[in-house]
Amino acid sequence: MAEIPATSPLAPAAFPDLPEIAGVSFATAQAGVKYAGRTDVMLAQLAQGTSVAGVFTKSATRSASVLDCQSKIGGAADGGAAILVNSGNANAFTGEAGFDSVARLVTRVATACSVPEHRVFTASTGVIGEPLPDAKITDKLGELTSSFDPMDIRSAAEAIMTTDTYAKGAGTSLDLPDGRVCIAGIAKGSGMIAPDMATMLVYIFTDAKCDQGSLQKQLTQLTDLTFNCITVDSDTSTSDSLLLAATGQSGVDVTNSEAFKSALHQIMLDLAHQVVRDGEGATKFVEVKVTGAATDSDARTHANAIANSPLVKTAIAGEDPNWGRVVMAIGKSGAAANRDTLSIYFGDILVAEHGWVAQTYTEAAGAEYMKQQDLCISVDLGLGTGTATMWTCDLTHGYISINADYRS
Amino acid sequence: MAEIPATSPLAPAAFPDLPEIAGVSFATAQAGVKYAGRTDVMLAQLAQGTSVAGVFTKSATRSASVLDCQSKIGGAADGGAAILVNSGNANAFTGEAGFDSVARLVTRVATACSVPEHRVFTASTGVIGEPLPDAKITDKLGELTSSFDPMDIRSAAEAIMTTDTYAKGAGTSLDLPDGRVCIAGIAKGSGMIAPDMATMLVYIFTDAKCDQGSLQKQLTQLTDLTFNCITVDSDTSTSDSLLLAATGQSGVDVTNSEAFKSALHQIMLDLAHQVVRDGEGATKFVEVKVTGAATDSDARTHANAIANSPLVKTAIAGEDPNWGRVVMAIGKSGAAANRDTLSIYFGDILVAEHGWVAQTYTEAAGAEYMKQQDLCISVDLGLGTGTATMWTCDLTHGYISINADYRS
Repeated sequence: MAEIPATSPLAPAAFPDLPEIAGVSFATAQAGVKYAGRTDVMLAQLAQGTSVAGVFTKSATRSASVLDCQSKIGGAADGGAAILVNSGNANAFTGEAGFDSVARLVTRVATACSVPEHRVFTASTGVIGEPLPDAKITDKLGELTSSFDPMDIRSAAEAIMTTDTYAKGAGTSLDLPDGRVCIAGIAKGSGMIAPDMATMLVYIFTDAKCDQGSLQKQLTQLTDLTFNCITVDSDTSTSDSLLLAATGQSGVDVTNSEAFKSALHQIMLDLAHQVVRDGEGATKFVEVKVTGAATDSDARTHANAIANSPLVKTAIAGEDPNWGRVVMAIGKSGAAANRDTLSIYFGDILVAEHGWVAQTYTEAAGAEYMKQQDLCISVDLGLGTGTATMWTCDLTHGYISINADYRS
Repeated sequence: MAEIPATSPLAPAAFPDLPEIAGVSFATAQAGVKYAGRTDVMLAQLAQGTSVAGVFTKSATRSASVLDCQSKIGGAADGGAAILVNSGNANAFTGEAGFDSVARLVTRVATACSVPEHRVFTASTGVIGEPLPDAKITDKLGELTSSFDPMDIRSAAEAIMTTDTYAKGAGTSLDLPDGRVCIAGIAKGSGMIAPDMATMLVYIFTDAKCDQGSLQKQLTQLTDLTFNCITVDSDTSTSDSLLLAATGQSGVDVTNSEAFKSALHQIMLDLAHQVVRDGEGATKFVEVKVTGAATDSDARTHANAIANSPLVKTAIAGEDPNWGRVVMAIGKSGAAANRDTLSIYFGDILVAEHGWVAQTYTEAAGAEYMKQQDLCISVDLGLGTGTATMWTCDLTHGYISINADYRS
């Protein structure tokens, strides 16, 4: 069977240096929820006055912790806050017991961190349908609360990994008229990734000052341009959660700052791309760009059909410039298309136009292009001004190897 | 890499004995369209008075021959008719040249078979985007028309294969009050299979008598219960065509015969299942049954989500009773579901209910069940009376091997 690389060939060279975020501390522990010999719990403590915004999976079978977090977003921001995440077990489809587990975790974390229960956000990621051994986690709370470290975001990123082959982080600092603001985020996710939203956990922290309503608005808008535009396998998890916490400790208000929003956008895009780059079995990172569609919604439908097509994705894995499969995906998407007005590009290479292969195109040029690790497939439908961009990866033997044997 | 079996492990033991259909003759030839050393063209001649019904792909980028056939269905039934099919090249996305090829094929076949041009139906299956060398095909018309054989439907089934690992046929004869009627059909298709409609070519012949309108109505209804309920990889081809030809030579009118419709249904289901059983890389045949949905449409949405989920399909490949992935697929489908009212069964084994694993379920029983070659995953949503059934296969290394290297 195919070999699964220890680290994705598309991984960044190293985990980035992330700025310290005033008002946030991290701790991790080995609770043995499922994995042995590695950390599997992370606890983040957030200073009093922190605004917390969130977006979550739309799955009809979402997990107990997702339902609990959703009910808390936008609530009273009195006291500090805490985020507790475990890997190895998703606590999803675990009946009433799942809710009981979340309730116990919340109560114990609230006490241990001296924050109100409605300011404790939990998440669980891993296998669905098995009871969460929450006592294993709460047993570690003493160890966790005695080891908070504001600089240890990398350990936090490592503790939340499941089938990820590398820890994911992104951050920046920017000088605004009123002072410097820092942003740092971490993410996990590699399979079960699809838009609305990608299957993953993401935590982003900033020392900027922003009321919850404005923070939520920014987060929702930017999620549609980033995490909702990536797909690995079209499957959507029951646990997807993205939290954005603004501690306000810098004193710099970013409510109306376009510079802050732009920086946040870049960090979310960076993390979203890192999730795709760790797609299970991925060997190619692919941008799918659709322009000239009748509407933005049509463009998105086409981009989605191309990015999720098993035949397109296996062709990419085989470095086969099989543009016929792109035509097939456009045809099946259900959105408006006209065979004779659409153009297809691989990178800058015009491949097809006027309902056929382009006169200037050569198979040799296409094949050479497909050898690259980062690819761009562009389609202009020639119908209107609708555009969409999505990011995906190829479909390889590695994906099968990982997923035909995940639980054993 | 994975080994690809010469014949699917799910293949029937042998090609069935099919009844001769009065008024239909077959011929095949090696035209060298793409393949060497095998037949790649089949010509069927249909007697005067034959009614021809058809259903076709809904792809927005459908091929020239599909568009041509669609325009002819329901037209005047004067004279005989002919069906010409080649494998190796789909003549899809081949611009104006593609239409010219079809026009040349139609003209030449009409002359060679002495039938009107509007009664010549062509189809091409294989690679997209490469010009069809139609002269190679028309060069063989003399050979074809001099070798018609009413019994050689098996050779016809073989000539239309692409990545199929076995020829597909099904047939029956039935004694109606007015006399005996025979039905025989062939199909090709193994990858690029998805509902609306599955990617394939299907030709069914009967000596029953039926006007075109009634025949078309039966075909459309039964397609929704058969070929539109199968999926291999969620991809839809540009060439899907299903023709049903009734020669009327038996003299038995079946316009209002439920027995005939039922027999036709069984043959279409048999052929549809054979297409799934030849799914690229398939090692398991899977029935997905959804009951208790709010509506039939919701049931179909859920069944589709389960049957197309890469994570469900890889779990099946790994013989992993990972029912959590079924929950995930239901959750992501977008149709109504309630975690606490749904039940999941593997075969007769109750796996999950009341929002959690069933008390009677054991992993050992689930794992044992998954070793079977033919599987049934049932979901009762506990919401209403909506039902749907779909058929699919697993997703294996074989699929990747075949599709990452199809063109070379």
